[in-house]
Amino acid sequence: MNGAAAAELPVYRARIEPDWIDYNGHLRDAYYGLVASYAIDELMDYLGLDAAYRERTHCTLYSLEMHIHFLHEVKGADDLKVITSVLDFDRKRIHAGCTFICGRLADPAATADMMLLHVHQGQKPASASLPDAVTAKLSALKLSSAARDSLGPLSRKIELKPR
Amino acid sequence: MNGAAAAELPVYRARIEPDWIDYNGHLRDAYYGLVASYAIDELMDYLGLDAAYRERTHCTLYSLEMHIHFLHEVKGADDLKVITSVLDFDRKRIHAGCTFICGRLADPAATADMMLLHVHQGQKPASASLPDAVTAKLSALKLSSAARDSLGPLSRKIELKPR
Repeated sequence: MNGAAAAELPVYRARIEPDWIDYNGHLRDAYYGLVASYAIDELMDYLGLDAAYRERTHCTLYSLEMHIHFLHEVKGADDLKVITSVLDFDRKRIHAGCTFICGRLADPAATADMMLLHVHQGQKPASASLPDAVTAKLSALKLSSAARDSLGPLSRKIELKPR
Repeated sequence: MNGAAAAELPVYRARIEPDWIDYNGHLRDAYYGLVASYAIDELMDYLGLDAAYRERTHCTLYSLEMHIHFLHEVKGADDLKVITSVLDFDRKRIHAGCTFICGRLADPAATADMMLLHVHQGQKPASASLPDAVTAKLSALKLSSAARDSLGPLSRKIELKPR
């Protein structure tokens, strides 16, 4: 985080398991997603959408969409941490970003962004408004558009263009 | 696959592990990515970019980018399979798609697409041209644009629009 938001989120420190390294000798693509998923769990705790909240309200977050840019190889011995950002939010949705930082590298090892929906789980899960206390925290965390632009590549249409 | 490509890929059948189910009682978002990653391993075998090829040539595929749409919840008892598609390719890159099919659901449970780069691994990994035998297979597999459009949602910019 670069201080552009009024509040700062805790940094998630990943533990790279040996079986996350694939035949290419680096962190398998999907495990960047798992590390991001765990970092979002910590964001949920920080926002008050923790296990106690989920049990009390039967509300939780569902992932709608996720995009990852794999920018550098991560090896088994690397330390890896994730800085989570609130890119945007509305009454029911949170657009969150993850920047993967590896001590060995000057630039991010990866970036990810995802859309999360607040859902009431019942017989049939349905979207539900976020509590005011959570939207207040999201307001304090939301990055400026300049800070957002400096995070690195975000989601886009994946396509081959002639080059 | 709907027969729009001249060749058809084998279907990947996922095995959902118990610890892939999260506190929401459904398949954790990141494990859709792991299932897609394993399906791409099978695509690599089918294309001839298998373990023997990788050992002989020191060439492999690296993931550059991945986007997933989570369309329906998948539960621990569900059967889940992935149909892989070749959306596009060039001399060094493959744009692949994954459609997640769950027996219980009429529509796909998820869709994913990803950009893969053919890389020669050495002291410093560098992009490398795909062998002609592989590009011939890719030509036979590549979907028409109509078939591609029928696959379901593909990658895009994730953003909140007023609604």
